[in-house]
Amino acid sequence: MKINNPFFIKKKNIYLSEILKILGIKKGKKDLKINNISDLNAASNNDISFISNLKYLDVLKKSKAKYIISNQKHFNKIKDFCYPLIVNDVLKSVYKITELFYPDSLNDSVDFSVDKPNIKQFKKINFGQNVLVGKKVKIGKNSKIGHNTIIESNVIIGSECIIGNNVLIKNSIIGNSVRVLDGAVIGKKGFGFFPDKNKNIRYPHIGMVIIKDNAEIGCNNTIDRGSLSNTIIGKNTYIDNQVHIAHNVKIGDNCIITGQVGFAGSSKIGDRVYIGGQAGISGHLIIGNNVQIGGGSGVIKNIPDNSKVMGYPAKDIRNFLKDNK
Amino acid sequence: MKINNPFFIKKKNIYLSEILKILGIKKGKKDLKINNISDLNAASNNDISFISNLKYLDVLKKSKAKYIISNQKHFNKIKDFCYPLIVNDVLKSVYKITELFYPDSLNDSVDFSVDKPNIKQFKKINFGQNVLVGKKVKIGKNSKIGHNTIIESNVIIGSECIIGNNVLIKNSIIGNSVRVLDGAVIGKKGFGFFPDKNKNIRYPHIGMVIIKDNAEIGCNNTIDRGSLSNTIIGKNTYIDNQVHIAHNVKIGDNCIITGQVGFAGSSKIGDRVYIGGQAGISGHLIIGNNVQIGGGSGVIKNIPDNSKVMGYPAKDIRNFLKDNK
Amino acid sequence: MKINNPFFIKKKNIYLSEILKILGIKKGKKDLKINNISDLNAASNNDISFISNLKYLDVLKKSKAKYIISNQKHFNKIKDFCYPLIVNDVLKSVYKITELFYPDSLNDSVDFSVDKPNIKQFKKINFGQNVLVGKKVKIGKNSKIGHNTIIESNVIIGSECIIGNNVLIKNSIIGNSVRVLDGAVIGKKGFGFFPDKNKNIRYPHIGMVIIKDNAEIGCNNTIDRGSLSNTIIGKNTYIDNQVHIAHNVKIGDNCIITGQVGFAGSSKIGDRVYIGGQAGISGHLIIGNNVQIGGGSGVIKNIPDNSKVMGYPAKDIRNFLKDNK
Repeated sequence: MKINNPFFIKKKNIYLSEILKILGIKKGKKDLKINNISDLNAASNNDISFISNLKYLDVLKKSKAKYIISNQKHFNKIKDFCYPLIVNDVLKSVYKITELFYPDSLNDSVDFSVDKPNIKQFKKINFGQNVLVGKKVKIGKNSKIGHNTIIESNVIIGSECIIGNNVLIKNSIIGNSVRVLDGAVIGKKGFGFFPDKNKNIRYPHIGMVIIKDNAEIGCNNTIDRGSLSNTIIGKNTYIDNQVHIAHNVKIGDNCIITGQVGFAGSSKIGDRVYIGGQAGISGHLIIGNNVQIGGGSGVIKNIPDNSKVMGYPAKDIRNFLKDNK
Repeated sequence: MKINNPFFIKKKNIYLSEILKILGIKKGKKDLKINNISDLNAASNNDISFISNLKYLDVLKKSKAKYIISNQKHFNKIKDFCYPLIVNDVLKSVYKITELFYPDSLNDSVDFSVDKPNIKQFKKINFGQNVLVGKKVKIGKNSKIGHNTIIESNVIIGSECIIGNNVLIKNSIIGNSVRVLDGAVIGKKGFGFFPDKNKNIRYPHIGMVIIKDNAEIGCNNTIDRGSLSNTIIGKNTYIDNQVHIAHNVKIGDNCIITGQVGFAGSSKIGDRVYIGGQAGISGHLIIGNNVQIGGGSGVIKNIPDNSKVMGYPAKDIRNFLKDNK
Repeated sequence: MKINNPFFIKKKNIYLSEILKILGIKKGKKDLKINNISDLNAASNNDISFISNLKYLDVLKKSKAKYIISNQKHFNKIKDFCYPLIVNDVLKSVYKITELFYPDSLNDSVDFSVDKPNIKQFKKINFGQNVLVGKKVKIGKNSKIGHNTIIESNVIIGSECIIGNNVLIKNSIIGNSVRVLDGAVIGKKGFGFFPDKNKNIRYPHIGMVIIKDNAEIGCNNTIDRGSLSNTIIGKNTYIDNQVHIAHNVKIGDNCIITGQVGFAGSSKIGDRVYIGGQAGISGHLIIGNNVQIGGGSGVIKNIPDNSKVMGYPAKDIRNFLKDNK
């Protein structure tokens, strides 16, 4: 499913020559139009993409993107599957090209265009007091929006949803029958930047948060939007209070995530995964389907389907219990 | 002390025959009126209750409840102390009977009946700006309520309390001289449900949060109300910021709970318990009096009175320090 | 840099004789004026200070304070560097003298003097809806203040700042180009008190929170103000969501603190320190410069410059990885 991103305006008519110039690459200046910058999975034929870690080589092989930003050490491994654009710092180069396509993408300020909802526009919606709604927001029928909640411009919320009090939603697309409980903050930019001596350089976050049907988001949760790809919460997945989900994380369907769990960026969680309280999941991991992770665990490597793990670092739960008898 | 629950309207005139029908039990259809569904401790003579784990057998023996929902494997152990109502799934059966008595108990929506407080009704109360107060709320004299705070219908707050800004309180009874700091969310339903393929089945939470005199609740805390019993914070217990307390947890008097601690459901904590930052307490545990739990610990079994523990899993602190020299 | 504290009114004309009387000290009643109570570092010539732990002996030697509250067991070690004021309970004595100088310091209530910002007073400031601003607040040019945010009296915010929605700021001085993200609570009193049977005795917190230029404070963070000294966030330090920073913590410049990290009171963190998600730092520690602390770590002792640590308790990361192969 391809969902159009309504949150950032993309510049059109960007030519490969302009991109190569920004990247400091001299050869190959064909006058080709590039449509967008995307991750390998989502990229279309005329998009530019990038690879910084060879564990994504198989994804590259299937990607539709032809022009791929990478660095010299990966050149030989990738050259048969794309036109490599070799740079010194892949992420900084991606950041520059993202900014080229989305000049507003570094701006993550308050949405001052929000105002009291126009009752004529939102029929069959129950609004609490002091609710603020931005431009072009869409809300499905029979949804309820709690007091003091702010829904920023272009957000889409399905029908039969209950959004609690004091909630902030931005850069998000929310399905039907979703519950977002009080105090949750959804869709702010991820914690991504290039450290720099006097002033860190912010990384553009043009992704969204997508929350699918029947999901429940707990109180005071923070769910950051993706950088290039999206942060996704699957269907019928329930999340308890005070959970933090960083940018680009993808959680499958029918998961149960209990209180104070934290996810670092870009991990992918399967379906029917149960995670006990206060567990932490490191970044860029793949957690399979039907996995159970004990409370307090620190997961720092991939976990195959149907595993039960516990511990810090997390290991097979039988070994954890044996080691701690 | 028996506190009346003003938050959910209980249906009267429920007969045992109706209950047996819902549970799929054919024999024993006496035409007896049942008053309520309660946990074993709180049950009165004419209440129905349940037992799903034999560690509560002693509680059953003292319970006033006669009709007890349980399953076949416990039949022989409990039959001399009650009339067992044998079902396949105890918790699902409890859920069905709870819904029978409390048809509104699955509804945990926003309270749209709240409004600006009527100053005539609340004398000697200091209200901040944008405060919203529900129907039949009671607040004792000299209490202060911070800006943007929402107090839902039927909540009772004692005298000399200070409730901070951006607080949400529902389904709660709060004593005197209690402080609730900014951003706390108190009394929402617990994270309890029956996982189901396309749409999880929510478990009714008809319990309350009870906060006793002189307690302090930290910023951005989340304290969920009980399912059948109540979540209780004892007298003079102080709780730091970002603590999560799940449904049915009972914390004793004079405890000190530091930042980011988490409690899973239904654990019982004694008096004068000190818990260091980020520690986690699993569900259904009993922590004694005068217990000290080191920061970062993961407690997964009961702890006797006067113990000092630390570690994940938590063990005697001397062993922890010896093992980690 | 000495920053004047605008948040608490200090009583003038306090004589040493009055202090000695409160401390129950009979000898030495000179009629000397004492200016203030301060920690050893910040104290001026005419200030009173205290030492409760000899690890601060070197600080004492350099301190300008002459009259030092301490207890009998330290008498011989400190007597050559100051006039010791010997008491039974150092902290309780400090609390009493703090209250003497700052009679309002125990009051940490809601600021009911806040109101809609006077647009004439705040030029070139972008205010969201329902913003509340206290007396004598200063905000620099081009700063933006999000919806529902509360800025209590005497707070100072620099220029080019972005303060998000639903933020509460009190007792704080904030530099230029600082970002405070949605739902953060900054400047409330620390979690410090003397446990007492029926009603704990609150410890006065007359310190501030100081946030330096270009820092970023994440969503739903809680940063408590100091007791006698200040809580400080250094220049260009970035803090992710749901981080808790207790009273008196000092974090250096250019640090990166990821999600759900917690700091107990009074620790000092160097420059360029990177801390992974959910790590916890115990109280009264010194963490050097260029330190890296792995996610989930529990740090319970000092860490020298240029170290990489991980684990609970945290140890050299090579040992952690070797022990957990």
